[in-house]
Amino acid sequence: MARINEHYRSLAAGYLFPEIGRRVRAFQEAHPEAQLIRLGIGDVVLPLVPAVIEALHRAVDEMGTPAGFHGYAPDQGYDFLIAAIREHDYRTRGIEIASDEIFVSDGSKQDSGNIQEIFGQGCTIAVSDPVYPVYVDTNVMAGRAGKADASGRHAGILYLPADEANGFAPEPPAERADVVYLCSPNNPTGTVLDRAQLERWVAWARAHDAVLIFDAAYDAYIADPALPRSIYEIEGARACAIEMRSFSKRAGFTGLRCAYTVVPKECMGTTAAGEHVPLRELWARRMSTKFNGVPYVVQRAAEAVLKPEGRKQADEQVAFYRENARRLREGLGAAGFSVFGGVHAPYLWLRTAGGISSWDFFDRLLGEAHVVGTPGAGFGPGGEGYFRLSAFNSHAQVEEALLRIRRAFGRG
Amino acid sequence: MARINEHYRSLAAGYLFPEIGRRVRAFQEAHPEAQLIRLGIGDVVLPLVPAVIEALHRAVDEMGTPAGFHGYAPDQGYDFLIAAIREHDYRTRGIEIASDEIFVSDGSKQDSGNIQEIFGQGCTIAVSDPVYPVYVDTNVMAGRAGKADASGRHAGILYLPADEANGFAPEPPAERADVVYLCSPNNPTGTVLDRAQLERWVAWARAHDAVLIFDAAYDAYIADPALPRSIYEIEGARACAIEMRSFSKRAGFTGLRCAYTVVPKECMGTTAAGEHVPLRELWARRMSTKFNGVPYVVQRAAEAVLKPEGRKQADEQVAFYRENARRLREGLGAAGFSVFGGVHAPYLWLRTAGGISSWDFFDRLLGEAHVVGTPGAGFGPGGEGYFRLSAFNSHAQVEEALLRIRRAFGRG
Repeated sequence: MARINEHYRSLAAGYLFPEIGRRVRAFQEAHPEAQLIRLGIGDVVLPLVPAVIEALHRAVDEMGTPAGFHGYAPDQGYDFLIAAIREHDYRTRGIEIASDEIFVSDGSKQDSGNIQEIFGQGCTIAVSDPVYPVYVDTNVMAGRAGKADASGRHAGILYLPADEANGFAPEPPAERADVVYLCSPNNPTGTVLDRAQLERWVAWARAHDAVLIFDAAYDAYIADPALPRSIYEIEGARACAIEMRSFSKRAGFTGLRCAYTVVPKECMGTTAAGEHVPLRELWARRMSTKFNGVPYVVQRAAEAVLKPEGRKQADEQVAFYRENARRLREGLGAAGFSVFGGVHAPYLWLRTAGGISSWDFFDRLLGEAHVVGTPGAGFGPGGEGYFRLSAFNSHAQVEEALLRIRRAFGRG
Repeated sequence: MARINEHYRSLAAGYLFPEIGRRVRAFQEAHPEAQLIRLGIGDVVLPLVPAVIEALHRAVDEMGTPAGFHGYAPDQGYDFLIAAIREHDYRTRGIEIASDEIFVSDGSKQDSGNIQEIFGQGCTIAVSDPVYPVYVDTNVMAGRAGKADASGRHAGILYLPADEANGFAPEPPAERADVVYLCSPNNPTGTVLDRAQLERWVAWARAHDAVLIFDAAYDAYIADPALPRSIYEIEGARACAIEMRSFSKRAGFTGLRCAYTVVPKECMGTTAAGEHVPLRELWARRMSTKFNGVPYVVQRAAEAVLKPEGRKQADEQVAFYRENARRLREGLGAAGFSVFGGVHAPYLWLRTAGGISSWDFFDRLLGEAHVVGTPGAGFGPGGEGYFRLSAFNSHAQVEEALLRIRRAFGRG
């Protein structure tokens, strides 16, 4: 009698984005004439930049020749990509990361979902509320979270309210927590942690032997050079932080799939007997057992993003999306919405019109403005009454969306 | 205090292939002049076929245009690939699989490693011995296997001896087992299950409400049309079997990454309360939460493998490797080795020379013949005294390897 993993039954009804997809499809079937504008799932729209396309073509040609063919990739990624990451993403910010501390993967969603596997079943997990659902759901599936209460909060997870009062940036908790997920620039609120805030988190983690999972998938959207791009810009972070970065939003890789995770050698967990164990060894074992590498052609494409021409082209795309975020922020503000984020992030976080529920606002926005966004409640109970819009669209569609939203809801 | 997942400490010393890699690198550093022949890790050597290269270039060009750009892929894979799989891999064999029962992934290693997540912690896992290590290691990591004894067998896993007496094809056990991993054509033994054997497994699984994980990653190497390619050719299998297939060895995708898993809607697990739950729903949830799709360009490449031109070209590569297997089988037999498998599989399984241990044979083969293979003990205690060679190399290298092996060990 094969018993199922019943922890799955403690999950909320559906993973957020498939549920949105279902509602959008139902609406489109009922209203085939509606021209939807998608500011929802956070998928990029601009094509891959020329430097990436050229790198892909070159790598594809290699794969068609006996001398240039590449089979299984090295466990942690190709040296050429790891060297480029060390140089561009770290040394330029004064950080030294060793080659064997970098693990190339097919996505930060996967990495942030899988990282919990290396921790003990009894670890207390802390997340901000609202939160990127993958952090919570993967711990629910693993049996670490327990059942959800009526509000949707799981007994085994420590929720740190991220609200207007604290600028959507909770401080380290007084309660015990062993593993804390921090996302900065934040999905969904679009806010960013500054140096002083990160310093407090690192100091707290070191004082409590806790581990920070620092998800920096949107670091490319940080415009202020004084803001840290990496948690390793903070003294002491190597001893307590695992960092994740992605090419998805930096260079339009959502359909190409490349990211990486850094696990410094000093970052330790403990056994029941009190022995300290490098988390890097556990993650290396996890990846060599359950993963088989990112396609060679994709790793060459990622390398191209880190070279001067590719960097310049990718930065232009980021600037393009940031301009969308600026227009949305100003336009929605002018229409009377309270808007947060969207300065150092591709996401805007707004209070729903008239304080209605976030799924009601989703349905109204879809039905009246034909605009698809993401209900805040999908990111946890703390997101209720809020709504996420993404900046990933054309300038024209963003302007059209603003026009429709103003018409449907606006005072401006 | 972040506690680690201590189940990792119950794993054998290192995942097999990284350990081989370390020994080979050490040998090469000590003997830089040695010309190694690799018949070890099972990586293909022929370049991607022209139809795949063309499909990749076309898809890359699309990704560089606003109209042709593809971001996040659909959760379970693109319709074009799923339709091609249904048609070519199933309908041609008289099997009907629904679109939403197919989950496109980046590898059968990942799928066969991740599938255990949907089962309860208390499930008894059965594997053949020797076995592809991923099935065991992922259950060890999940805490389902317990500690290993001196022989390397874990208390919580039921090992089914696969030996010369049963033709390396264990029968269904008398003991209880809830989830059974079957690999056919088999890695590492290169043997294949015939229709009667599969019928006995399906009947047993149905009688015991057990689930079969049928890993058919090497089905392309089945030469006899009377042998089943899919477990769904067996009456009743839809109610008890999950199947995995891969493009890795069928079309040289080890460095491109594409595979798929089929979970029929009738395939059920149970809850503690006795409720029956479709495993498809759990796997769908697992994949939508922890995976983000296979790159568009790779899915187009996989589709090309299933079209007439790509099929023909890929089949030629398979025939090329099968010819290597034939030469190895005959050459090693003539040299006095007892050889198994290698007829409907790219792997040969041989008894070590003089009955020495399989790691000793690995070291001797490397040191004296400069040939890299895989020690049988790496596949579990039942593999001790045996050795795996793969057919993935050029004809010339295979002939040279045979020459060197005969010189070092042979009687022929």
